[in-house]
Amino acid sequence: MSGANLQVDENGRLRHFLTVEGLHRGLLVEIMDTAESFLGVVEQSVKKVPLLRGKTIVNLFFEASTRTRTTFELAAKRLSADVLNINVDASATVKGETLLDTLRNLEAMHCDMFVVRHADSGTAHFFARHAAPHVSVINAGDGRHAHPTQALLDMLTIRRHKGGFDRLRVVIVGDILHSRVARSQIRALNLLGAGEVRVVAPHTLLPVRAETLGVRVFHDLEAGIRDADVIIMLRLQHERMRGALLPSEHEYFRLFGLTAERLTLAAPEAIVMHPGPINRGVEIDSQVADGAHSVILEQVHYGIAVRMAVMSLAMHRRIPAPEAREAGAEREIG
Amino acid sequence: MSGANLQVDENGRLRHFLTVEGLHRGLLVEIMDTAESFLGVVEQSVKKVPLLRGKTIVNLFFEASTRTRTTFELAAKRLSADVLNINVDASATVKGETLLDTLRNLEAMHCDMFVVRHADSGTAHFFARHAAPHVSVINAGDGRHAHPTQALLDMLTIRRHKGGFDRLRVVIVGDILHSRVARSQIRALNLLGAGEVRVVAPHTLLPVRAETLGVRVFHDLEAGIRDADVIIMLRLQHERMRGALLPSEHEYFRLFGLTAERLTLAAPEAIVMHPGPINRGVEIDSQVADGAHSVILEQVHYGIAVRMAVMSLAMHRRIPAPEAREAGAEREIG
Amino acid sequence: MSGANLQVDENGRLRHFLTVEGLHRGLLVEIMDTAESFLGVVEQSVKKVPLLRGKTIVNLFFEASTRTRTTFELAAKRLSADVLNINVDASATVKGETLLDTLRNLEAMHCDMFVVRHADSGTAHFFARHAAPHVSVINAGDGRHAHPTQALLDMLTIRRHKGGFDRLRVVIVGDILHSRVARSQIRALNLLGAGEVRVVAPHTLLPVRAETLGVRVFHDLEAGIRDADVIIMLRLQHERMRGALLPSEHEYFRLFGLTAERLTLAAPEAIVMHPGPINRGVEIDSQVADGAHSVILEQVHYGIAVRMAVMSLAMHRRIPAPEAREAGAEREIG
Repeated sequence: MSGANLQVDENGRLRHFLTVEGLHRGLLVEIMDTAESFLGVVEQSVKKVPLLRGKTIVNLFFEASTRTRTTFELAAKRLSADVLNINVDASATVKGETLLDTLRNLEAMHCDMFVVRHADSGTAHFFARHAAPHVSVINAGDGRHAHPTQALLDMLTIRRHKGGFDRLRVVIVGDILHSRVARSQIRALNLLGAGEVRVVAPHTLLPVRAETLGVRVFHDLEAGIRDADVIIMLRLQHERMRGALLPSEHEYFRLFGLTAERLTLAAPEAIVMHPGPINRGVEIDSQVADGAHSVILEQVHYGIAVRMAVMSLAMHRRIPAPEAREAGAEREIG
Repeated sequence: MSGANLQVDENGRLRHFLTVEGLHRGLLVEIMDTAESFLGVVEQSVKKVPLLRGKTIVNLFFEASTRTRTTFELAAKRLSADVLNINVDASATVKGETLLDTLRNLEAMHCDMFVVRHADSGTAHFFARHAAPHVSVINAGDGRHAHPTQALLDMLTIRRHKGGFDRLRVVIVGDILHSRVARSQIRALNLLGAGEVRVVAPHTLLPVRAETLGVRVFHDLEAGIRDADVIIMLRLQHERMRGALLPSEHEYFRLFGLTAERLTLAAPEAIVMHPGPINRGVEIDSQVADGAHSVILEQVHYGIAVRMAVMSLAMHRRIPAPEAREAGAEREIG
Repeated sequence: MSGANLQVDENGRLRHFLTVEGLHRGLLVEIMDTAESFLGVVEQSVKKVPLLRGKTIVNLFFEASTRTRTTFELAAKRLSADVLNINVDASATVKGETLLDTLRNLEAMHCDMFVVRHADSGTAHFFARHAAPHVSVINAGDGRHAHPTQALLDMLTIRRHKGGFDRLRVVIVGDILHSRVARSQIRALNLLGAGEVRVVAPHTLLPVRAETLGVRVFHDLEAGIRDADVIIMLRLQHERMRGALLPSEHEYFRLFGLTAERLTLAAPEAIVMHPGPINRGVEIDSQVADGAHSVILEQVHYGIAVRMAVMSLAMHRRIPAPEAREAGAEREIG
């Protein structure tokens, strides 16, 4: 694990969390293990742990996303941190302050962590590159909902249902072209040793030479989901419709919507995932979304735990080296 | 107390708080008793009790109301809960998520209570009907300010000033037709055994066959407040003016505004109440609003305590059966 | 120290903090001493002190200012207070409630402190004049960023760098005419016994008879900063450009912008200050703003501590009389 990697410190411990790219397999496992240790917190009568008490976490949102902000705010509060919600539109940048000045000012106020959401995902990287040594940055995504905690919570969901990744057939269905979350998922699945990663998409929503990402490409949903153990449906962004990349929602559903009938083609114990919010009747039928195979709401639950894990690991940096962890070393997250 | 009632559990304990309708007299007394136990909290140097520590309470507001949100947020914080403020306009529903998906997602994040405000008051009922077993829903009203905690805080105010409801003459003045808070007040007053409940309103602001609500109807303010022990002035909504139901604010004040002179017609110890915010010089003269008979600011104080009571009762559900309580059983709110 | 002064109680202790005018020198020293005792809090692993636990502090903002709100919210949370953010535009005043009713309602909810920001700075004074005995009001400024905590944090910054104020040459550069913070600084510097206070400004941005404020007036930057120990650059408000008081940003920079070259005219150990947010290349060159003489980010850090000091002093009012403090009496901030 190279020190040149912005996301880890010289001891290979998580410092910033910006993207799945460049992260060591051991670190992904570490985050999932830590997240699992937090799943029980919500069963306690007092749903909090004091790990980040007195720390200040700033939700620095350059574009509104109540849903995303809520998950990070909840994760921070369950770690007992103080949370500041800052919508930067109405703030200093309006007055001509630069991004760097915004960072420096909040650092001078001794804020400890920035959860950054910006239409340009480069902003989180920019903050990480310039952050003071004690500060951590978490990428909360851009307008396309591509935040890396999403890929991690998806991996945790799969691991908890399937026990591991070996021999798993995982299929990702939808707009691969515009979805960085899909690319993060593909990367994470390959890192974690998934048996086979497939993508299903119309030609217009697939990157050129998609195979180089490490996937099998299908243009036909029924072929793509055959015997799949895990089906990840992507949210269809409405702007794709307006952008003439697709004929209509109705037509999309006819060709790529997951129905109960199609689901019978998958493995009998297949799980169905979706990052939410779901478009019922566009990429997925309600019968499937609410059915026995769906683990969509579990993903939401695991998402809080994954955000708690990333926050506490980045703030504490006392985890043993990933290799030691994988060998079964004792966990230390305090 | 029927199990069919959405608001109470099978043991008759408060589960959701949506409306005064259908609530047992004993439960109203229980809420008032519990609220009284919280009145002292604000006199402590640390104005908090740890009853809901680690619980997550979501202010889920589909329409803005800083005033209402503030009272619930304060109540929740004084119970040591974590509070999430979610304005749903800017959130998931914009992305086409259904109400039910919003509920399910927030439940999956292990939120414990939803304080719901929506222009359509059916929304709170909808959430209550579909909520997970561990979740409670509180109706924070619709655009007309008809939240049931208002009726309860009014009852508590009366009880603290008059000792009880027997033989009391209570008059409600104003727009009875459009005020669900008035209907809740009438219902609660009758349940609690008030001696006489009167309403005073112009014909255009009175429901047809208002007498069937259990009130004496007056169209003349001076006749209506004669010998009254409690005078509840309703806020006149400005849209009633625009709606041509009334000639003008000035004319309304001339006919139905409470002045010091008119107040002399009431009982010597009469108290004057108003849910706020008051329209000075429209439904009430400043001399009365700020005068010795006014208990308007006490209502605000009691309102926090009533919200604390409703929140803690709904979350704990360990109160003895209402009948036992009324017989003087030991209180248990922890 | 007169009891007629709204800002201090009958024992000369800070009650409201509205303006530097009228404050005793000893009280300024008291605030700075208390602020210094809080500087270490951010070095603790748990960056909080329990001084205001259970207290409710309301950020009552009649105009948006995320930056200002953030500093007060952080200060309050580090004192363990509960914070309510209320944007009054969207609130009760829209419904015709008067300012006084807003105050009375929030007091009835047992809020303890109001941090008030309003385009009309008279609003904070109005609240202080009418506040209940247990309530404190802090002026968080108006649209021109003239909040008195700014002047205090500037004084603390100077004291920490220069040890004191005797024999110091302090120069304030920029729009003196429209800047109440400049006037507060001048007042505070003179109270604290600064050796010489200078102002540098074009004629159009200087009050008439500026000398009566207790300053030496310069219209030439190079003359004004000669041998200065402290250089305070004011933010140039963009509306001054539009208002035709100035030719252009470029021209302003040419005449009044602080460059590295000009800085060599000041004393060798001179410090450069700015209230932020800075306009790089308008009133100050980036080389200076980010250079070795700049203490701009320290000001931000000290600003949190000064706000903590003002909040805790106003809420506790247990400090000894200022004279005793100056004589070296034991500190008591708990």
